[in-house]
Amino acid sequence: MFKKILIANRGEIALRIIRTCREMGIRTVAVYSTADRDSLHVRFADEAVCIGPPASRQSYLNIPSIISAAEVTGADAIHPGYGFLSENAEFSQICADYGIKFIGATAEQINSMGDKATAKASMRAAGVPVIPGSEGLLESIEQGKELAAGMGYPVIIKATAGGGGRGMRIIKSEADFEKAWNDARTEAGAAFGNDGLYLEKFVEEPRHIEIQIVGDQYGKVCHLSERDCSIQRRHQKLLEETPSPIMTDDLRARMGEAAIRGAQSIGYEGAGTVEFLVDKHGEFYFMEMNTRIQVEHPITEEVTDFDLIKEQIKVAAGVPISGANYTPKLFALECRINAEDPANNFRPSPGKITNLHFPGGHGIRIDSHVYTGYVIPPNYDSMIAKLIVSGQSRAEVLTRMKRALQEFVIEGIKTTIPFHIKLMDDPGFQSGHFTTAFLETFDFSDL
Amino acid sequence: MFKKILIANRGEIALRIIRTCREMGIRTVAVYSTADRDSLHVRFADEAVCIGPPASRQSYLNIPSIISAAEVTGADAIHPGYGFLSENAEFSQICADYGIKFIGATAEQINSMGDKATAKASMRAAGVPVIPGSEGLLESIEQGKELAAGMGYPVIIKATAGGGGRGMRIIKSEADFEKAWNDARTEAGAAFGNDGLYLEKFVEEPRHIEIQIVGDQYGKVCHLSERDCSIQRRHQKLLEETPSPIMTDDLRARMGEAAIRGAQSIGYEGAGTVEFLVDKHGEFYFMEMNTRIQVEHPITEEVTDFDLIKEQIKVAAGVPISGANYTPKLFALECRINAEDPANNFRPSPGKITNLHFPGGHGIRIDSHVYTGYVIPPNYDSMIAKLIVSGQSRAEVLTRMKRALQEFVIEGIKTTIPFHIKLMDDPGFQSGHFTTAFLETFDFSDL
Repeated sequence: MFKKILIANRGEIALRIIRTCREMGIRTVAVYSTADRDSLHVRFADEAVCIGPPASRQSYLNIPSIISAAEVTGADAIHPGYGFLSENAEFSQICADYGIKFIGATAEQINSMGDKATAKASMRAAGVPVIPGSEGLLESIEQGKELAAGMGYPVIIKATAGGGGRGMRIIKSEADFEKAWNDARTEAGAAFGNDGLYLEKFVEEPRHIEIQIVGDQYGKVCHLSERDCSIQRRHQKLLEETPSPIMTDDLRARMGEAAIRGAQSIGYEGAGTVEFLVDKHGEFYFMEMNTRIQVEHPITEEVTDFDLIKEQIKVAAGVPISGANYTPKLFALECRINAEDPANNFRPSPGKITNLHFPGGHGIRIDSHVYTGYVIPPNYDSMIAKLIVSGQSRAEVLTRMKRALQEFVIEGIKTTIPFHIKLMDDPGFQSGHFTTAFLETFDFSDL
Repeated sequence: MFKKILIANRGEIALRIIRTCREMGIRTVAVYSTADRDSLHVRFADEAVCIGPPASRQSYLNIPSIISAAEVTGADAIHPGYGFLSENAEFSQICADYGIKFIGATAEQINSMGDKATAKASMRAAGVPVIPGSEGLLESIEQGKELAAGMGYPVIIKATAGGGGRGMRIIKSEADFEKAWNDARTEAGAAFGNDGLYLEKFVEEPRHIEIQIVGDQYGKVCHLSERDCSIQRRHQKLLEETPSPIMTDDLRARMGEAAIRGAQSIGYEGAGTVEFLVDKHGEFYFMEMNTRIQVEHPITEEVTDFDLIKEQIKVAAGVPISGANYTPKLFALECRINAEDPANNFRPSPGKITNLHFPGGHGIRIDSHVYTGYVIPPNYDSMIAKLIVSGQSRAEVLTRMKRALQEFVIEGIKTTIPFHIKLMDDPGFQSGHFTTAFLETFDFSDL
């Protein structure tokens, strides 16, 4: 087992990793920018090394500084957390070159999943469903119709140069194809000076559902069931839950099996997440694979009892896994508490926390690096706490979450707490029937 | 279901009950003495009524004040928590007379379990093992020997007027009986002016193990397994864990069955705890039954997922239980964080908390009513927080608890945290092999 792990990250995830290392009897090295001198991850680590000024590029993304901190302190492994260097193939390779174990994917695995087209091709080859599409630009209406007939309507055509919905049309039947094609071409040409179009199967009423996997060094991969992350604002997750309200045993078995197959096809080791879109028919399509721990991993921990950071460290050290899969025994929900003003377009609200009191009691977990008097620096992402609630039913979890959010005292800054409280009372959210578009029509004005 | 519950208690348990009521959509009324104006239970309740000055007798034990608070606020039920009026038969009866549901045992049940001799007789009649004894004073050496032969050695003779170990002798075989008898009589006569002796089976290497039960209004009783409370100082529990390190499936089945049988024999409704001593041979003996929620109930919640306060409220409202028993799926440990100086004979340390930061992360639960700036009044018991840790193994729970204790920041007062940290490192505690006498030889001097 490792003797000393350097944590190449900050905030709650750095503290999260330090906690598990302590429990495993592994010494820890924190690194920090000058903006993070007073952070709890610095205070709770056994050693701490300043690696640069506030700008991430000069500190948390500064590979030479981090490698030399590891060398100076004699760390035998580096945990990158999420974000920053966690999916940086060069960093993974440099760690390997220096004989420091990178607790994450190899450079090769990161590269194979980092490029979307390569990842899709490799998953398709492994038999994992991917969204069917034209694989390049359409050459003619006829070719488009033929492809659409093969994959079934509805389909969507998109401008290759597009964005913001322009040059994009959803087509529900072959009768509509020609008009949509012409409209999209004209719009794309006018908007982007490029009328090239490609075609994809249109995923109806999509939900974002991801499968947590863990692979060891001996080719075994297991899954720890799913997380539903459909509640997003501009592709930013705000809340995650498990099990997914739409999950069935059969769908979980098929998605879990696909995720394992995909991971095994690239010889994946460590914890990872395979993200899928699931449509209203229960068909699922590979989106991407994250070769690192996710922000939302605690909800999986709450319902399976595993410590996923411990599992990461164990498999990185060569401990084999049993290979058994795990399904949720409970329900769990995570609200991301961000220092943002939800009534004001989620504008960041850094500053000093003048008073802080966390909720407590049965089924409540808090992962946070902040405390009374802490000054949130403006340099990094605005998440200041994860509030994770578990219970015997989804209904119990929702009422418990609302109770905990109401108990949460945080003064001096704006947070996303009022948004989450309103969400807990929303009949659409309560019903469990929602798609990734849910927040597009949500009223933030009265928060 | 009840519409409004008055909580006739203070501190963490009052807050604990308010939390569950909120989650159930039940309105709450807090009562408080003038010493508790700034307590969180007052702040988080929907309504709060001052019931008197600091002295418990004039506030939390003041039945007329509490009943009138319930009448004025229109509460349809009263939850008494633990301590104070929770096992007061008169209070239970008065609530019934006023048409307010007492969430606890009936006056009759409280009386039948409140008197030790009556409780033992009633349990013996129900076939629950009780410690065999002489049922009154011994009349002669011969009668003593005969009884001892019947129950098997070792036995213990005790002065009926005794205390502090005087007039008490453990007898290992019949050959030692006469000398022990004479010595004990002489000592008792000299010390207390009363040389009456009684005899009991001596419980060897006793552990304090209690069974949590829940009974409904229809005669069904289930158990939710055990809690091991052997770590005590002068009969005060300081730490509790589940499952017990000495538990086996067979012993749990037999103890659970005995606890259910005992509870059913008195028609018990609600949550209750049947306390046993278990000797080194795995024989168990009824000690007493607590007809209320216990301080240490959260460890059972962590390993069975039930909210025991919710279960209490549900059965009080007439909801039937399934009758199934529950066994631990995990391991859980509770440390009582008291405002006491463990290096100074656990002397109370009331005063102002100048800085407070709770530990967090995976497997950590905190039940506490205190916050930064809170002034602990000197009038009540000194428990200020319960730190509850759960995990996949006892070893994981011990290392996690140590990590959490080390993270716990509390300034301005002395607490029992240093004692608990030392206990986590104690090989005797770690081994799981200890008795209720464990702390008698513990070195508190270096805390």
